[in-house]
Amino acid sequence: MLTRSTIDRVVAAALDEDAPWGDLTGEALIPADARARAELVAREDGVFSGGEVFEAAFRLTDPAIRVELRRVDGAPFAAGDTLAVVEGPARAVLTAERIGLNFTQRMSGIATLTARYVSEIDGTQARIVDTRKTTPGLRAFERHAVVCGGGHNHRFSLSDAVMAKDNHLAVLESGGADLTVALREALGRLPHTTHVEVEVDRLDQIEPVLAAGIDTIMLDNFSLDDLRAGVAQVAGRAAVEASGGVSLDTVRAIAETGVDVISVGALTHSARALDLGLDIRIGD
Amino acid sequence: MLTRSTIDRVVAAALDEDAPWGDLTGEALIPADARARAELVAREDGVFSGGEVFEAAFRLTDPAIRVELRRVDGAPFAAGDTLAVVEGPARAVLTAERIGLNFTQRMSGIATLTARYVSEIDGTQARIVDTRKTTPGLRAFERHAVVCGGGHNHRFSLSDAVMAKDNHLAVLESGGADLTVALREALGRLPHTTHVEVEVDRLDQIEPVLAAGIDTIMLDNFSLDDLRAGVAQVAGRAAVEASGGVSLDTVRAIAETGVDVISVGALTHSARALDLGLDIRIGD
Amino acid sequence: MLTRSTIDRVVAAALDEDAPWGDLTGEALIPADARARAELVAREDGVFSGGEVFEAAFRLTDPAIRVELRRVDGAPFAAGDTLAVVEGPARAVLTAERIGLNFTQRMSGIATLTARYVSEIDGTQARIVDTRKTTPGLRAFERHAVVCGGGHNHRFSLSDAVMAKDNHLAVLESGGADLTVALREALGRLPHTTHVEVEVDRLDQIEPVLAAGIDTIMLDNFSLDDLRAGVAQVAGRAAVEASGGVSLDTVRAIAETGVDVISVGALTHSARALDLGLDIRIGD
Amino acid sequence: MLTRSTIDRVVAAALDEDAPWGDLTGEALIPADARARAELVAREDGVFSGGEVFEAAFRLTDPAIRVELRRVDGAPFAAGDTLAVVEGPARAVLTAERIGLNFTQRMSGIATLTARYVSEIDGTQARIVDTRKTTPGLRAFERHAVVCGGGHNHRFSLSDAVMAKDNHLAVLESGGADLTVALREALGRLPHTTHVEVEVDRLDQIEPVLAAGIDTIMLDNFSLDDLRAGVAQVAGRAAVEASGGVSLDTVRAIAETGVDVISVGALTHSARALDLGLDIRIGD
Amino acid sequence: MLTRSTIDRVVAAALDEDAPWGDLTGEALIPADARARAELVAREDGVFSGGEVFEAAFRLTDPAIRVELRRVDGAPFAAGDTLAVVEGPARAVLTAERIGLNFTQRMSGIATLTARYVSEIDGTQARIVDTRKTTPGLRAFERHAVVCGGGHNHRFSLSDAVMAKDNHLAVLESGGADLTVALREALGRLPHTTHVEVEVDRLDQIEPVLAAGIDTIMLDNFSLDDLRAGVAQVAGRAAVEASGGVSLDTVRAIAETGVDVISVGALTHSARALDLGLDIRIGD
Amino acid sequence: MLTRSTIDRVVAAALDEDAPWGDLTGEALIPADARARAELVAREDGVFSGGEVFEAAFRLTDPAIRVELRRVDGAPFAAGDTLAVVEGPARAVLTAERIGLNFTQRMSGIATLTARYVSEIDGTQARIVDTRKTTPGLRAFERHAVVCGGGHNHRFSLSDAVMAKDNHLAVLESGGADLTVALREALGRLPHTTHVEVEVDRLDQIEPVLAAGIDTIMLDNFSLDDLRAGVAQVAGRAAVEASGGVSLDTVRAIAETGVDVISVGALTHSARALDLGLDIRIGD
Repeated sequence: MLTRSTIDRVVAAALDEDAPWGDLTGEALIPADARARAELVAREDGVFSGGEVFEAAFRLTDPAIRVELRRVDGAPFAAGDTLAVVEGPARAVLTAERIGLNFTQRMSGIATLTARYVSEIDGTQARIVDTRKTTPGLRAFERHAVVCGGGHNHRFSLSDAVMAKDNHLAVLESGGADLTVALREALGRLPHTTHVEVEVDRLDQIEPVLAAGIDTIMLDNFSLDDLRAGVAQVAGRAAVEASGGVSLDTVRAIAETGVDVISVGALTHSARALDLGLDIRIGD
Repeated sequence: MLTRSTIDRVVAAALDEDAPWGDLTGEALIPADARARAELVAREDGVFSGGEVFEAAFRLTDPAIRVELRRVDGAPFAAGDTLAVVEGPARAVLTAERIGLNFTQRMSGIATLTARYVSEIDGTQARIVDTRKTTPGLRAFERHAVVCGGGHNHRFSLSDAVMAKDNHLAVLESGGADLTVALREALGRLPHTTHVEVEVDRLDQIEPVLAAGIDTIMLDNFSLDDLRAGVAQVAGRAAVEASGGVSLDTVRAIAETGVDVISVGALTHSARALDLGLDIRIGD
Repeated sequence: MLTRSTIDRVVAAALDEDAPWGDLTGEALIPADARARAELVAREDGVFSGGEVFEAAFRLTDPAIRVELRRVDGAPFAAGDTLAVVEGPARAVLTAERIGLNFTQRMSGIATLTARYVSEIDGTQARIVDTRKTTPGLRAFERHAVVCGGGHNHRFSLSDAVMAKDNHLAVLESGGADLTVALREALGRLPHTTHVEVEVDRLDQIEPVLAAGIDTIMLDNFSLDDLRAGVAQVAGRAAVEASGGVSLDTVRAIAETGVDVISVGALTHSARALDLGLDIRIGD
Repeated sequence: MLTRSTIDRVVAAALDEDAPWGDLTGEALIPADARARAELVAREDGVFSGGEVFEAAFRLTDPAIRVELRRVDGAPFAAGDTLAVVEGPARAVLTAERIGLNFTQRMSGIATLTARYVSEIDGTQARIVDTRKTTPGLRAFERHAVVCGGGHNHRFSLSDAVMAKDNHLAVLESGGADLTVALREALGRLPHTTHVEVEVDRLDQIEPVLAAGIDTIMLDNFSLDDLRAGVAQVAGRAAVEASGGVSLDTVRAIAETGVDVISVGALTHSARALDLGLDIRIGD
Repeated sequence: MLTRSTIDRVVAAALDEDAPWGDLTGEALIPADARARAELVAREDGVFSGGEVFEAAFRLTDPAIRVELRRVDGAPFAAGDTLAVVEGPARAVLTAERIGLNFTQRMSGIATLTARYVSEIDGTQARIVDTRKTTPGLRAFERHAVVCGGGHNHRFSLSDAVMAKDNHLAVLESGGADLTVALREALGRLPHTTHVEVEVDRLDQIEPVLAAGIDTIMLDNFSLDDLRAGVAQVAGRAAVEASGGVSLDTVRAIAETGVDVISVGALTHSARALDLGLDIRIGD
Repeated sequence: MLTRSTIDRVVAAALDEDAPWGDLTGEALIPADARARAELVAREDGVFSGGEVFEAAFRLTDPAIRVELRRVDGAPFAAGDTLAVVEGPARAVLTAERIGLNFTQRMSGIATLTARYVSEIDGTQARIVDTRKTTPGLRAFERHAVVCGGGHNHRFSLSDAVMAKDNHLAVLESGGADLTVALREALGRLPHTTHVEVEVDRLDQIEPVLAAGIDTIMLDNFSLDDLRAGVAQVAGRAAVEASGGVSLDTVRAIAETGVDVISVGALTHSARALDLGLDIRIGD
């Protein structure tokens, strides 16, 4: 999901941010010809994500560094596992270390948290999806991490799918217009490839919205009972997404109401970086 | 700490990421001449950070939007408080909403978490500082948020201060060289403005390192007893930084050992986005 | 559909391309304090597109230039009509002239050609849509022009909708797999917001493809009879797109077969620039 | 004429535009390890242009793709000819296909149209040249295509040659100044390497303009008789360019008037994309 | 000669380079609401250049700063003169100071050195021109400074004029080809707007080169006698440029040989920054 | 000190600046398949700097060019020495020549001038350092050159160390505040890694400034006697930097006063480009 040119552009900017005029420590303390061998080691269990990004951090610092990935993206690992091996000029390995870790720890953190949510709803028909609550500049990376964890992606941006919320519906209904009619008319202006999702706050909004011919209906902050009622009312005429109040404690119950999609902002906006370390040995 | 040109560059890229070819929903459902008034409302207590960034998200989407900030960066607020008021063309307000929130929620989350750490060590001589475990591309923003929360910054990058770790020391000592001599010689090659910090793992490393004339010594993963012993041994000849195993539960005890600086990677790598919402009313 | 930041970024690059170290002619021949008034005049009938882009070319060259648009994007005009009036420092007006024209002529050319296609199918249920055969770097601008001409957009990129073609289907069927089963399984991996369109070359492919639960079926290079048969066979279970062999001569007959969508690559890859001129008067 | 760094920068931006977060179709439907072999095949006769650009589209998507060009830029080909062969990972080949084609079709379209103009004036002393009516961002590419078609380039930008038009001359003459004197004085301020071309609308303007010592005189929208008269009057003291009303129908007669240069805006602003296709076979 | 967008792009990058994460000193020592008034004062005589660039350094740091220029570019000044007055928020004024000075000192240094060369040849027919020996990234700025000093520009780049040197001539003559014939043929491939200059090392090269119909002949490292002989030999058939061994001591004698153009690499590659200072008063 | 990504970014921009649409001369006069061998030869004695940058100019123009460096950065050389050998396609070698030279001549010029200053103070305890008076966009390159010449770097930017000057001190003392107290308080807000340097103009400022606990004190424009007095007064409590009035004539006397650091703006703002040439032989 991540193209090489995207990875290289973002990683190069991160390296610039972290070493705008070089690594003072390495230049002063490490001989120019010293070599290093480093292992990316898991300090806790998790799901791997960001292997290519990790590799790019070292390659873009010095093309002479070799990175061997021991896990593919999406693979689970246990504390103590070696996830990758890095070998090359010591100064460059030390220069790239932090950026390589910053990306991989964040991405693996998201993948691991996603995997916990996915595991919680195992056996239901629901899927766990992300939201647009991502880190500015890193959305493609974080969405990739969600997929590594077994989740699915929601729309990427404002440009690729419609998500009509309370404000939009209020505007459509202003002046006493019929919601269904107004919505259908508005949707007719969209590209035929645009998926249309509408968020509702109450059960009585479902029918007029569905009648406009939409693709997904989001039941926002519904109780479990209302979710069940909503699913029954939709009756397969659209996909049903549950949103709001989703946590590891509540997600299974939500999934068991029969919804198709559960969106979890916390996957990206509040995931903890996973504890991965780089064990470096400098020699020759 | 954030310059206007930096803010504008990063926020513009985030807006592009989120609306590469416009906001399909707004264009289809909201009249071009509709106007909106929106309030940024706190859903939980916290410390504000990112006001100028929030403003930039709206200004760069449409210069006709006005943003009035009700809190300055660093100010505390309570759930229910209105932190800013936005007014302008409805389509543009809706287009900028998510990006404005993504930045402010993240930055206020970091500021709020930092404030909790700072509050924990109130009355001690220690300061809470960040690390280089920041989000790629957003380091200046996240460091600013740490300051908003009452914390201090550590070095920004590999380029502006020396941090010698176990690997560096091992290299200096290889071949049986005297650590103090080798370190002092290496440091002589640095700019005179470079602050030199050295990380040690054991108490017996303190003396040879201090003898080289360094500025800060980091005691990495020391027990509380060893921290106390370390502080005593350093005896004011350098600043003392504690690192590793720092949490809200342990930070006060660490501070009470007498260290000067406590670095907390979690401030930036694992802060939770704060729950802020934008209450929008579309009218004319 | 075009955001101000996108417009400004692309127009600034075009200005740089056309005057990397200034306008030698204006600097040598026009006094620094001379002023100019210019009218954008249509030399032929057409549909306007690119007003904001035209304005940006002058504004980015010199903020002191004022541009008054006399037509909104999407408005028709006749030969001789004045579409915009420009006033400001003469050197800057002359510097920006060509770039302003290059954008507006191209966009209005696309809008005008699109309007001719749309007019040809008036009264049918079909819509005219663009393709990804756009000018590298200008896709958002050209898609906007298509909408100005009364057309609709197809997917923007490889990232926002699925378009499975003969190669993809061949892969799915390789090894004797059942196409419907294989396709359904593959689609299950997509985001729930992804619109799925499949291109078929023969009538007998329609049924297995539809059975997989897709959104749009593209009948590629079908005869009119086969298009009619295809529409009948689909029977509303998916949108039907006709593609291939579409020209102003054939488009109405195609539309009358009952298809929903007709994609026309020529709208963007072969549109002629519209003849618009800038009549400039330099005075004081 | 196109440097590798220019090609790579522009092609990478085009790939980003077309796959901002990957190719959903390929990722869902094509196995990661499938390979493809593709042939770039001409669907009509033409002149090739853009081989290196085509190659870059695939290389920048995946360095593992190999592209073998079967025609050099500027070579003619017939419908059915294979112009290039591509081989590599199937997903990447499919991802790069459209961008590779968009560039090559456009450039070969320009080269082919140029070649028709050049062929029309065969045996005369005139040359066919382009104008600044190019696609924003692609001028260097389109000018290269003109050369591939046997045409020549005009000035690249406002910065590299003078082109004084009616507005400039009017300013020089304002207040009753002598045109020759005013023009000569103005030109004295230019770099000595600047080629000076002046556009005139009437025969009586030729003499005062030539007297100022210019390099090329453009006869704008002159009748054939006036062109002949103009050429006679100039009598070799400057190059003569004809402009305006040039089409494939008129270009030979214009060339036969004895002008040196015929500029044709349509070469770049209205060329049709050439019909080239990529025949892909996915296997292993 | 410098467009606003070029100035802003280059100055913004310089500000980023000088304050990647803010001005630590100002933030720590100057109150946020303090204001400053500063005067740009000449510490030595010179010619001003870079007024708009100076203004941009302050405006891009904080739009609230006002800059009043007291000299236009190209104006001479004496030690002690006030060249500009700056007023605004003190922190921002201090942040922009160095960058504003770095540009203006360099550009005024070039303008002043140029003016000395121009003054030396006063009364001759020669002009002083720059070369491509400019600072990477600042060529347009440095060329503008040369013009401010009364000099003229040579070609800007490899793309806008031909300069054939010994290597090129050697290639043309290889295999015993006739230089005039080979050169004329090669030049026929160029755009008609391309100025052609050829560098020769010996008097006997002049005739065959001139015979090819070139615009300027450069006499490289010729003695004064040979320059005089060269000028006589060319006899007005092309412009004559002298190059090599040009200094303030030798330039008048060179000019008096009758050459038209004297190129001086030192104008840009070795000009000393002019001593300008910013006298700042912080108050309220 | 220069990372590969920084070098490549800056050199690519310089190449674009110098050949925005190719090298007209080479394309017209040199066969596409001609090859060249070139030697970078010193025309005067000096210290080498910019080897990797020189190499990048050729590699980025054409990856087929091979550059063999005969000197490492920092090595001295004599007039006539060959510093590097270049071999590859002739057109590309000629295209890259000027940019390769512009960088290397400038950097070697700075290194050579620095080496002269360093040599002048040989045997003293002082070090020669640069300032922020660098070329916009090239600071990292010019600082690297200073190190090549045996000098040291001062702070890189406003962001990595404090330098409090007269204006800052005046603000601290305004309203009658005690300077030591005010300064100490302000410095407490800085990161603990920030080096603090304060500039004083008079001997009586030393004591209150030192009392605040700073790292370096700069004695600005002090007489030699006052420098000696200042060094005595500081007595090792901080590093002492001399600034102002430093030239090759005065630097030794200044160094002999016992100061630790001597900053020389001229190293970067007024260094002369070193005379290096590229001797090219085109063959096959």
